[in-house]
Amino acid sequence: MAAPTESYAGKIQRKLLKKQRVIEAASGRQKADLVLKNATYVCVFSNQLRTCDIAVANGLIVGLGEYDGAREIDMTGKIVCPGFIDAHIHLESSLVSPREFARATLPHGTTTVITDPHEITNVMGTDGIDYMFQATEGLPIDVRFMLPSCVPATPMDESGANLDYRAIDSFYDYPRVQGLAEMMNAYGIIHNDAEVVSKIVASQAHHKKIDGHAPGLVGKDLDAYVAAGVYSDHECSTKEDALEKLYRGQFIMVREGTAARNLEALAPLLTPQYAERCMFCTDDKHPSDLLEKGHIDYIVKQAINVYGVDPIVAVKVACHHAARYFLLNNRGAIAPGYLADFAVIDNFKDFNVEMVFKKGELYYDHGELKDFAAPQIEEYLDQRAHDTFHVRHLVEDDFRDQRQRGVIGMVPGEIVTTDNGYADHVDLEKDILKIAVIERHKNTNHIGLGYIQGYGLKSGAVATSISHDSHNIIVVGTNSRDMAFAANRIAENHGGIVVVENEQVRGEVVLEIAGIMSDRPLLDVNRELEAAKDAAFRLGVSRGIDPFMTLSFMALPVIPSLRITTRGVIDVITQQYI
Amino acid sequence: MAAPTESYAGKIQRKLLKKQRVIEAASGRQKADLVLKNATYVCVFSNQLRTCDIAVANGLIVGLGEYDGAREIDMTGKIVCPGFIDAHIHLESSLVSPREFARATLPHGTTTVITDPHEITNVMGTDGIDYMFQATEGLPIDVRFMLPSCVPATPMDESGANLDYRAIDSFYDYPRVQGLAEMMNAYGIIHNDAEVVSKIVASQAHHKKIDGHAPGLVGKDLDAYVAAGVYSDHECSTKEDALEKLYRGQFIMVREGTAARNLEALAPLLTPQYAERCMFCTDDKHPSDLLEKGHIDYIVKQAINVYGVDPIVAVKVACHHAARYFLLNNRGAIAPGYLADFAVIDNFKDFNVEMVFKKGELYYDHGELKDFAAPQIEEYLDQRAHDTFHVRHLVEDDFRDQRQRGVIGMVPGEIVTTDNGYADHVDLEKDILKIAVIERHKNTNHIGLGYIQGYGLKSGAVATSISHDSHNIIVVGTNSRDMAFAANRIAENHGGIVVVENEQVRGEVVLEIAGIMSDRPLLDVNRELEAAKDAAFRLGVSRGIDPFMTLSFMALPVIPSLRITTRGVIDVITQQYI
Repeated sequence: MAAPTESYAGKIQRKLLKKQRVIEAASGRQKADLVLKNATYVCVFSNQLRTCDIAVANGLIVGLGEYDGAREIDMTGKIVCPGFIDAHIHLESSLVSPREFARATLPHGTTTVITDPHEITNVMGTDGIDYMFQATEGLPIDVRFMLPSCVPATPMDESGANLDYRAIDSFYDYPRVQGLAEMMNAYGIIHNDAEVVSKIVASQAHHKKIDGHAPGLVGKDLDAYVAAGVYSDHECSTKEDALEKLYRGQFIMVREGTAARNLEALAPLLTPQYAERCMFCTDDKHPSDLLEKGHIDYIVKQAINVYGVDPIVAVKVACHHAARYFLLNNRGAIAPGYLADFAVIDNFKDFNVEMVFKKGELYYDHGELKDFAAPQIEEYLDQRAHDTFHVRHLVEDDFRDQRQRGVIGMVPGEIVTTDNGYADHVDLEKDILKIAVIERHKNTNHIGLGYIQGYGLKSGAVATSISHDSHNIIVVGTNSRDMAFAANRIAENHGGIVVVENEQVRGEVVLEIAGIMSDRPLLDVNRELEAAKDAAFRLGVSRGIDPFMTLSFMALPVIPSLRITTRGVIDVITQQYI
Repeated sequence: MAAPTESYAGKIQRKLLKKQRVIEAASGRQKADLVLKNATYVCVFSNQLRTCDIAVANGLIVGLGEYDGAREIDMTGKIVCPGFIDAHIHLESSLVSPREFARATLPHGTTTVITDPHEITNVMGTDGIDYMFQATEGLPIDVRFMLPSCVPATPMDESGANLDYRAIDSFYDYPRVQGLAEMMNAYGIIHNDAEVVSKIVASQAHHKKIDGHAPGLVGKDLDAYVAAGVYSDHECSTKEDALEKLYRGQFIMVREGTAARNLEALAPLLTPQYAERCMFCTDDKHPSDLLEKGHIDYIVKQAINVYGVDPIVAVKVACHHAARYFLLNNRGAIAPGYLADFAVIDNFKDFNVEMVFKKGELYYDHGELKDFAAPQIEEYLDQRAHDTFHVRHLVEDDFRDQRQRGVIGMVPGEIVTTDNGYADHVDLEKDILKIAVIERHKNTNHIGLGYIQGYGLKSGAVATSISHDSHNIIVVGTNSRDMAFAANRIAENHGGIVVVENEQVRGEVVLEIAGIMSDRPLLDVNRELEAAKDAAFRLGVSRGIDPFMTLSFMALPVIPSLRITTRGVIDVITQQYI
């Protein structure tokens, strides 16, 4: 028999009892659960350091003064910051499960991230959103969602789903959804595409936020984009770009991640004149970057030490401003009624995170991370996430082709490409390789073929199912047999990266969750990834290129000049297949 | 036949069409409705004056740049500010209808007020809230509501209603409700009174704001009050008081109204260090004060010119900060997507408001106020508001009494009182008068009797139905006959103020809406009010006393030392009738 539904009166009574405990502890009539004694903390309201006891009960800060607690921790000589917030990330970019992501970022003082589950949604449709809800439930970092706005990224993409405003509408009622994620289709808005604009209208109808993504947009195009209801941007790479958006009321997410780094350019905004409108984000964080540099704490440290930003300002940008923007009004500050989320550091200069508290619980303490349970994922979603490859067994002949095809020219260190004419066969002397994109969601048997120049591979094939934004299988090779073997291997593994030579696996990362994430620990995934990179380099891939990341952008038909989709090589400027 | 209910798809389509017009105008493909040409405006995001055209369509700002409009107004030499916001007011204190209030404040640049309909709700219960919703619908100032939290103000009060959390709960769904109004019962919260705390819990359950009212509260009491969920305070009268609250995360409403003036004390908060957490409010504005000084514009002007506040800071406090606090995220700034609410001034020093726009419509232009329709009030509520006196005809004997009663001592210029012992008869030599409070809501026949010293009346009687917070009839007199006549006159008029001598009316203000507001123009009400004051002074009332306002606080049993309720004279400190 199902439990009876809670009445409104019952709900109020349940919350009342919690509230009364908070009031009893705040008043000093009952002991607090936890007291940070003699704590010097960042007061985001008076923009200064203040020192007193911080009392905690029921996971909330209840008082600032002198308090006794069931547990007391002396904070003399430390600085207590509100827990940090990543204002925009795609969790999938870490290549690990959200739980593993939490294990990696919690020790850096991160207690809240705003994720756009755009990658998994391109694979699994709305089931991907549900999967991420369940995979983040109850984690000791609070994962909040922006709903993917552009699935698929373009009409040329063959992704796992095609979502209009109505398809995502019911998710706005979910308590951890803050709004609509980056509206990448800026021209769709500016040119008043009803299907695109409807997504904004619906998010506003739910009183939710809408994030932007519009590098370099200016003038009336920017006015139209902002007037439509896009409230933030994380794609500014110059101060001027950022100011044009700030003047028009957009919040600026200063991004410093793995793929894009804008802190240097935007540090001049982190002054009292502008900082109120700024927050930090990473957008994408790859495993090695997370392990070597850290997360939001790394950005704060750089801002203070490299760019001379006032430490109080830097910390506010790292927590308070994102909280206010996303209407998460009980976090991002240290005051009664706020979540007891703390990042305790040694000092502003070294900025070593020594202890991290989430809702009053000490999760990280001088190098020791407390274990926490993996979220429960229901059987349907779990099986669905682990069975996303619907593609027949491929054979050598699938990659044999006598026609001439466009040659995509790679540019070292960039993701733009050049138009290098045509080819009709692999030519290792000219570094012309065959490239293919294999539709893998719906068994359509669509295989786009073309050539690529500048990758450097001398033998075998490299394949990956991380292939923005549709995450089909992309494979580059010197011969058709290894290309077929590599693509089949990806499908058999239910996703990942593989480096193949003579039908032998030379390096491999299995990404069995939707073909883009692993269930295993971040350290293991990172080790395998670095080993696979080495294998690719040994097969000749140019050292100036990230063998897998660069490949993963070759199927995104929005970046000039040439790309390849499941239907062949496309000229991005003219949107014509060539 | 009723119109069919709008489908969700229909609603999105309706909003889409409006949005598409905004985008077309922003992009410049269609003409804007209105363009403020060459406008120097306050940019609250970059904290500076900026100059460009401001384009408006569909009542929204759509672009900042160079634009053509169906109507163009040259703004050269002027300063365009976002429309001003009063963060906390009881509209009833103006003694006129909301429409008349709008006529008085719109020329001062006010485009939004947050009202607590606490006065009318004490008379009419939740019907008072509904009445105010209807009486403010469609006005060219946007009236937003905080739901009264303390009706009646105390258990000793006999008001027209007794509202628990459940009684006001359905009002949270009303689109113009922002939260729960000033939690005056601070000790109820601190001492964890379930009935009081439930009101906060319910407001939070609706994701709404909760305003505070806690003069001088400090230490753990303040921690408990804030931890309970009270987000603001408008009762700070010293910088120290305000800082204690600001440190704990409360927003500070700097109040400068008719009854209480805190700008001088709190001006030191209006600096870049603290101003982000501050906004302006008036709390109460009486007719003559509105007419002589103005509204929020007056506070801004004083802040700049008397207290040396930076003009950009002062303007932000007057609009942007209140908008953000109340989550009214499309107002309080000049940027695409924001409401086209503007106060155009000549310069920061003189701060003369010359033009006022509400949603892009020019309502006030150099002394000329555009007329606007009175909101429609349904017959039930209109009749209900005009028939709130349920009290039998009173006679001389009702005020005759041989017992000794407490003597309330008035203090010139203050609303506190002293305990002046006992009396058993009127003694004009000692300035001891009889005072009575007559329950008038429910025909209970309760009449509290007592004496008052220091009022000065030498002849006749003075009565008013503005009597905080329950708005019973309060009457002071030299003799029982005039007291009965005055009280009866109030009831016959359905409310107001009367000055009586020898059963003749010497001065009178009719306040026929719930006994506390008039349907007539503010100028007329003010003239009658000033004439009635003169009449009271002619009958001997001391010149240092506001004859009616001072009286209106005598029945509020929360301010020491003695007060009078419908049950007699009460010692506020001991809460005992004496």
